[in-house]
Amino acid sequence: MRNVLTLFELTAAEIERIFEITADLKTALKQGVREPLLAGRVMGLLFEKPSLRTRVSFETGMAQLGGASLFLGEDVGWGKREAMSDFARVLSQYVDVLVCRAKSHRTVEELAEHATCPVINGLTDQSHPCQALADLYTMREVHGDLRGRKLAYVGDANNVARSLLLACARLGVQFAIASPPGYDFDEQFVARVKAAEPKADLLQTRDPIEAVRGAAAVYTDVWVSMGQEAQRDVRVQAFSDYQVNQALMQQAAADACFLHCLPARRGEEVTDEVLDGPQSVVVQQAGNRMHVQKGLIVWLLGDEA
Amino acid sequence: MRNVLTLFELTAAEIERIFEITADLKTALKQGVREPLLAGRVMGLLFEKPSLRTRVSFETGMAQLGGASLFLGEDVGWGKREAMSDFARVLSQYVDVLVCRAKSHRTVEELAEHATCPVINGLTDQSHPCQALADLYTMREVHGDLRGRKLAYVGDANNVARSLLLACARLGVQFAIASPPGYDFDEQFVARVKAAEPKADLLQTRDPIEAVRGAAAVYTDVWVSMGQEAQRDVRVQAFSDYQVNQALMQQAAADACFLHCLPARRGEEVTDEVLDGPQSVVVQQAGNRMHVQKGLIVWLLGDEA
Amino acid sequence: MRNVLTLFELTAAEIERIFEITADLKTALKQGVREPLLAGRVMGLLFEKPSLRTRVSFETGMAQLGGASLFLGEDVGWGKREAMSDFARVLSQYVDVLVCRAKSHRTVEELAEHATCPVINGLTDQSHPCQALADLYTMREVHGDLRGRKLAYVGDANNVARSLLLACARLGVQFAIASPPGYDFDEQFVARVKAAEPKADLLQTRDPIEAVRGAAAVYTDVWVSMGQEAQRDVRVQAFSDYQVNQALMQQAAADACFLHCLPARRGEEVTDEVLDGPQSVVVQQAGNRMHVQKGLIVWLLGDEA
Repeated sequence: MRNVLTLFELTAAEIERIFEITADLKTALKQGVREPLLAGRVMGLLFEKPSLRTRVSFETGMAQLGGASLFLGEDVGWGKREAMSDFARVLSQYVDVLVCRAKSHRTVEELAEHATCPVINGLTDQSHPCQALADLYTMREVHGDLRGRKLAYVGDANNVARSLLLACARLGVQFAIASPPGYDFDEQFVARVKAAEPKADLLQTRDPIEAVRGAAAVYTDVWVSMGQEAQRDVRVQAFSDYQVNQALMQQAAADACFLHCLPARRGEEVTDEVLDGPQSVVVQQAGNRMHVQKGLIVWLLGDEA
Repeated sequence: MRNVLTLFELTAAEIERIFEITADLKTALKQGVREPLLAGRVMGLLFEKPSLRTRVSFETGMAQLGGASLFLGEDVGWGKREAMSDFARVLSQYVDVLVCRAKSHRTVEELAEHATCPVINGLTDQSHPCQALADLYTMREVHGDLRGRKLAYVGDANNVARSLLLACARLGVQFAIASPPGYDFDEQFVARVKAAEPKADLLQTRDPIEAVRGAAAVYTDVWVSMGQEAQRDVRVQAFSDYQVNQALMQQAAADACFLHCLPARRGEEVTDEVLDGPQSVVVQQAGNRMHVQKGLIVWLLGDEA
Repeated sequence: MRNVLTLFELTAAEIERIFEITADLKTALKQGVREPLLAGRVMGLLFEKPSLRTRVSFETGMAQLGGASLFLGEDVGWGKREAMSDFARVLSQYVDVLVCRAKSHRTVEELAEHATCPVINGLTDQSHPCQALADLYTMREVHGDLRGRKLAYVGDANNVARSLLLACARLGVQFAIASPPGYDFDEQFVARVKAAEPKADLLQTRDPIEAVRGAAAVYTDVWVSMGQEAQRDVRVQAFSDYQVNQALMQQAAADACFLHCLPARRGEEVTDEVLDGPQSVVVQQAGNRMHVQKGLIVWLLGDEA
């Protein structure tokens, strides 16, 4: 039994295998085939924070596979009325796989320690592995082989960026990040990535143009995430030179695509021109959240994992 | 790909076809057959207002067809955190069909403009097409051919009444409405109906007896809808002469049925005697919400629409 | 059509039959077989109080059987906007079976009076039949034939205890309860149990040791249930001598198991040592909520009930 709390837990070969399953399922779906591979299986979603994309992509993915899902939001008070150990062991009696979105990464870790079914991280303060898998899968759909190509991330070195860096390291993609002072990766995390993938190719800069130059994909995220509203003014100020606009996109490779994990704050981190422009693949990328998660769940509940 | 935001979008022949599919599915169900016609398909429900009947009838209908549904209530904040265009395009990547219940009809229209899957109106301030389809389907179950027969609606010319008028116009049923001053159809809407169906047979009167005389069906709705609680006293006063009671029912045809979209406020717009009486088919009518919606979804997701 | 509001409605033979179906389904599941016995069937869950275990065990059970479920919490306002008779009759048009968790037992009774599909009590102030079925099923898994053996319940003679007493009476198990003054069964209830099962073997005592002596199973529940928080100090004081700890467990039979309906308040009604110890079967017991409820639903919706 395996958990996916971060991409540290998946090897490059395992990610490739998940992408392979994903591609097969996506092709079948386009042909109208929804094989009920997980008929009678149940996914539990434990969400401490509201979510639309993550929730809907997991639930529809599971339904397309013939399975069911059970959404338990913060209103349910899961893990509040009893010890996490009791909660996790009991819940594992019922469901086949758990997806957890938690404020603190530690919560997901604790859940995984006690659960006897696979646990998937559906976003924590530290990482967002499913998003990063969908992102790299999308980039592969656009460009084919990614080895040696560059992904430029412009903005805050947040949970999404951390998982992206690790995904790029795993798959041999150069990761360039342009962020203002105070919004960098912490060094400990970078050290862990380099320990896990000694060949990781990371460029950290303050200059968006340097980061984006020649990139196969340009990526950004909102300047102010959920829960950071109080820091809005400070953040908008800090990131004001980090907008992805048409001028910046022109620094990228001619065939570059634009990625965004959405929701976007149009006019802030990205202009309408870019978000709605011909290089933008954000809708395809959002769709791939579902496709990749289907691949991941099928892999986790199958015999290979 | 088709949307059903109002009945303006459905021709008489299409409504007949939906009724045909409905009848087949209902007959099969009575025989215990639940063919999984929509296995692996997912319906998204976007509801700005609470709902029991609409929600449950859609979700159970989908489940009986082997599909799944995903309920997103107002607490989820759909359409709040990002542009409706982004939200609708992304959601369409996941689900096969959307049902939307919105305070403003414009919200459903906007959703449909950007969604790339069919959108069904699950009730707005302006219309309630699924209710009207269920109502006419029920009337047909009771009476068979409806052409030339009369449906009398006693009460407020609200969203339900508007859709009913249009459904009657489409199917050649005379629509008579008795409403107090200030609670009439707006003239623009009536003009649109007549433009769409020049033979529409509409009687507007202040006199419930005139409306009901000889009718094959007598219909009413609550005097005070959700969100109108502040107008309660004014409305109860205005409608005090518009109660459907046994005396009024006796003005209808001998074989007339009583219809109500429910929930009912017993003792206000309808007496217990009528609601629980032998002419009342309100429970069958409520059940037909599900049956007709099943027919509608199968039609929308099939090859004909 | 049958309802299960209390165990008064089930004979010993019927309980045995439900256990038989349960065992078959549980064995199949362990072999990876999830036969879609209830494909296209829908269970409605009407919950006035929050719930995790009851809700999740019912929903996953239904999903494993190929069916779907529809959770309607207190926020939905079911039964508030219209007469219970209208609500229940309409809901029965949609769903195949209803599970209701209500503050007042009368609510579940009223629902059952008007619903035209089976109604299952998912916990009321008076009884918790599904829990008691799971408890006895677990005890049977541990001990095999239960006839003549003893179940010791230490704590408040609450809804769980009431259903347990009745389940024991039905299945020929001695029921011993140790509770402090003021927390006994009411005499009327005991009289009803004895009228239904004249051979019921009930020992009521103030002494936990007397209750537990030689027991095949020792059971306890929290001292302060949901909604009783205001009485916390009084209750903790009253039950301070009624903790199930290792010393008390040693009074039971050597092969005794420890049961708890969970969630547990570790260190209050039970020590970590017992809850996590080798005699504890609380996780298996919690899992059996789902298994037994699957058996119950299959029985209720099948031809035998």
